[in-house]
Amino acid sequence: MTTTTLTAPVATSPVATCPVNGDRLWGALMDLAQIGATPKGGSCRLALTAEDGAGRDLVCGWMRDAGLAVQVDEVGNIFGIRPGQDNSLPPVMTGSHIDTQPTGGKFDGCYGVMAGLEVMRTLQQHKVQTQAPLALAIWTNEEGSRFVPVMMGSGVHCDIFGKDVALQARDHAGISVAESLQAIGYAGTLPVGQLKPASYIEAHIEQGPILEAKDTVIGVVTGSLGLRWYDVTVTGMEAHAGPTPMELRQDALYAAASLMRTVVDIANADAFSPDGRGTVGEVHVHPNSRNVIPGQVRFTVDLRHPKMDQLNAMEAAFRSAAAALQAEGRVQVQVVDVQEFPATPFADELVSAVAASAAAHGYSHMPILTGAGHDAVYMARRFPTAMIFVPCKDGISHNEIEDAQPAHLAAGCQVLCDVMLAQAGVVAA
Amino acid sequence: MTTTTLTAPVATSPVATCPVNGDRLWGALMDLAQIGATPKGGSCRLALTAEDGAGRDLVCGWMRDAGLAVQVDEVGNIFGIRPGQDNSLPPVMTGSHIDTQPTGGKFDGCYGVMAGLEVMRTLQQHKVQTQAPLALAIWTNEEGSRFVPVMMGSGVHCDIFGKDVALQARDHAGISVAESLQAIGYAGTLPVGQLKPASYIEAHIEQGPILEAKDTVIGVVTGSLGLRWYDVTVTGMEAHAGPTPMELRQDALYAAASLMRTVVDIANADAFSPDGRGTVGEVHVHPNSRNVIPGQVRFTVDLRHPKMDQLNAMEAAFRSAAAALQAEGRVQVQVVDVQEFPATPFADELVSAVAASAAAHGYSHMPILTGAGHDAVYMARRFPTAMIFVPCKDGISHNEIEDAQPAHLAAGCQVLCDVMLAQAGVVAA
Repeated sequence: MTTTTLTAPVATSPVATCPVNGDRLWGALMDLAQIGATPKGGSCRLALTAEDGAGRDLVCGWMRDAGLAVQVDEVGNIFGIRPGQDNSLPPVMTGSHIDTQPTGGKFDGCYGVMAGLEVMRTLQQHKVQTQAPLALAIWTNEEGSRFVPVMMGSGVHCDIFGKDVALQARDHAGISVAESLQAIGYAGTLPVGQLKPASYIEAHIEQGPILEAKDTVIGVVTGSLGLRWYDVTVTGMEAHAGPTPMELRQDALYAAASLMRTVVDIANADAFSPDGRGTVGEVHVHPNSRNVIPGQVRFTVDLRHPKMDQLNAMEAAFRSAAAALQAEGRVQVQVVDVQEFPATPFADELVSAVAASAAAHGYSHMPILTGAGHDAVYMARRFPTAMIFVPCKDGISHNEIEDAQPAHLAAGCQVLCDVMLAQAGVVAA
Repeated sequence: MTTTTLTAPVATSPVATCPVNGDRLWGALMDLAQIGATPKGGSCRLALTAEDGAGRDLVCGWMRDAGLAVQVDEVGNIFGIRPGQDNSLPPVMTGSHIDTQPTGGKFDGCYGVMAGLEVMRTLQQHKVQTQAPLALAIWTNEEGSRFVPVMMGSGVHCDIFGKDVALQARDHAGISVAESLQAIGYAGTLPVGQLKPASYIEAHIEQGPILEAKDTVIGVVTGSLGLRWYDVTVTGMEAHAGPTPMELRQDALYAAASLMRTVVDIANADAFSPDGRGTVGEVHVHPNSRNVIPGQVRFTVDLRHPKMDQLNAMEAAFRSAAAALQAEGRVQVQVVDVQEFPATPFADELVSAVAASAAAHGYSHMPILTGAGHDAVYMARRFPTAMIFVPCKDGISHNEIEDAQPAHLAAGCQVLCDVMLAQAGVVAA
């Protein structure tokens, strides 16, 4: 598929002549952030709102200026295609999303799209032709704040769920995705999933604290964590806190607190460290009154691990603890499966290319897993996929104060450029 | 104070000629429950509403029919006085309340008042004259559902807080106690606290599971548990459940769950068993989202013990655990004092009289503490006081399905009658 292989160090290879422009990248990010700008410095462009439409219009204009042919598919996914020498080859694709959380930051998703745009602008500026075509994707509704399911556009593209599931999804006001696409002019005609890339590489802020803690510029993402969600209900008997002696109590919270801690203890166990995750995020106590022994506690469990056999073992440990708690006889424990995502390893060849590029430029780098959901996680189920992470300040994302350093963003963009060129092959001038 | 001492067995003493009428007692309870009756068989007579007013009117009529002189004090406490031979003596008082929770039962409070009424009716029927006068009190707003503070009428009577605190208290609609008293015709003129009883004996359903569990008819209440309430805030750092590795987390819930369990473990410790109580009733998790590590958890702590030195030791153990948790360095732990009630032992002479009466009638009986608040708990700080508990079904109270057995209610009433006569002294016919 590729005609030219990138050789490390990149500095001495042909593509070393294509340095991305970090200032231009930063400027594009700041300009896009003005659409739906929030008082605290973030952005609010909920999927398929007028603000999202204005953001799409702005970026589509930039894409066309950079020489891309813009196509829109039936669920509003946007693809900017840069022709190669051989357009019968499948494109090398990058992308991400530009919809945001209600109090979103400037970088989540937008960085991936703007980094891809900067690659296209760089190649245009330096008149670089690739063997295979390149593509820049803007996926519809990655955030899922207005419409569920999340990662909607990439999900339909990868046939994780059907087109109608997306188009018929409605927001709290009862407005459907189909109606919203019409309203903002992004109900396209390209059949969903028709564009099948040779490979997919997505740049993203880490949305976690690891790179910053390790003072590392490039996260070489090796795959996504498998995830299992459960709802747990612990039922005892509510009773007055004063008159009820300890030995006659069926205190649902005392029992639940033990199981909540077990969820975390499992993830911390040597067998599952350091990549396991265990979180209880949501707790509801009934009747939640100061002087009433809780009769029922509902809580959520989130278990993650990059290896499915390990995730299975974590689940088994959790279910065993729940069963043991019930066997003590004071409370009933119910565990309901809510959702799961399989662990998805990324493509070895692409992961190696990301590491090689970072090394060639002298960027500090380390392997990392993505614990958050990304369009790339769905893409990885169908196409060779990789991701490039850059640090975000204090690991904070989904927040107006989300921040990242221009030099880090430029470095990630440079790696993206290198890997795309290596995959697509550069046609000698 | 007394001129005749009741001698066990009661069956052979003069007062054995005064058997209470259990059917009449039951009938009065059922008639009163019709006012504000709820679909599930309970009653809703929030303090000083029209329903409470109608209940007061009904019971005041019964009091007058039973030969009592009815007086109302400035905060709406009602006293029905049955003259004795020597009315310079302070009265022997019984009483309770007839206001209810929004979904209250038929027995909480009402039993104490109806039992006192039945004593008065019995003595009228049998033409028994006492040396000292007798009094039947209906305390204003014991429940505290509409107005705070709870145990309002007895609290002012005992000078726990001032008359104005009560009169100026307002409900959610902004209506004051003073206005509500006027509206239902119970803004009396008797100065609050003027009527100082020689002793106070209150009959009540247990509102707990102990008597039923022990198959015992009469709870000889020896005093009230001391109580301390705290608000605890555990602060960590919220972060995404996926991207944040375990070792970088400051999981407020994991830490809080440990301290929640410690509260219960302290109460279960040998040093504080079997009378200690430890309860976490209310929990608030922030941001309470399935895939976010909790950044802050607030919860309540309720510690109780009948011995103040033991209660102090329980508090010390709890504070020590909170400090140790903070010392681990992952979270901040703040403990705020909210409220306390001292442990209040009841009057030995009265407690013994209750036990003696139960024994004389062959009623199974056992010492018990009251963990719930009652008007008697305030009265015990000023006057010799005792309580008589009878079982309630499944220990359930503050609930429309609250239930009690007629035979148990009659037995508790008989003990009340015996003890009041013993205290007031019976004038030989």
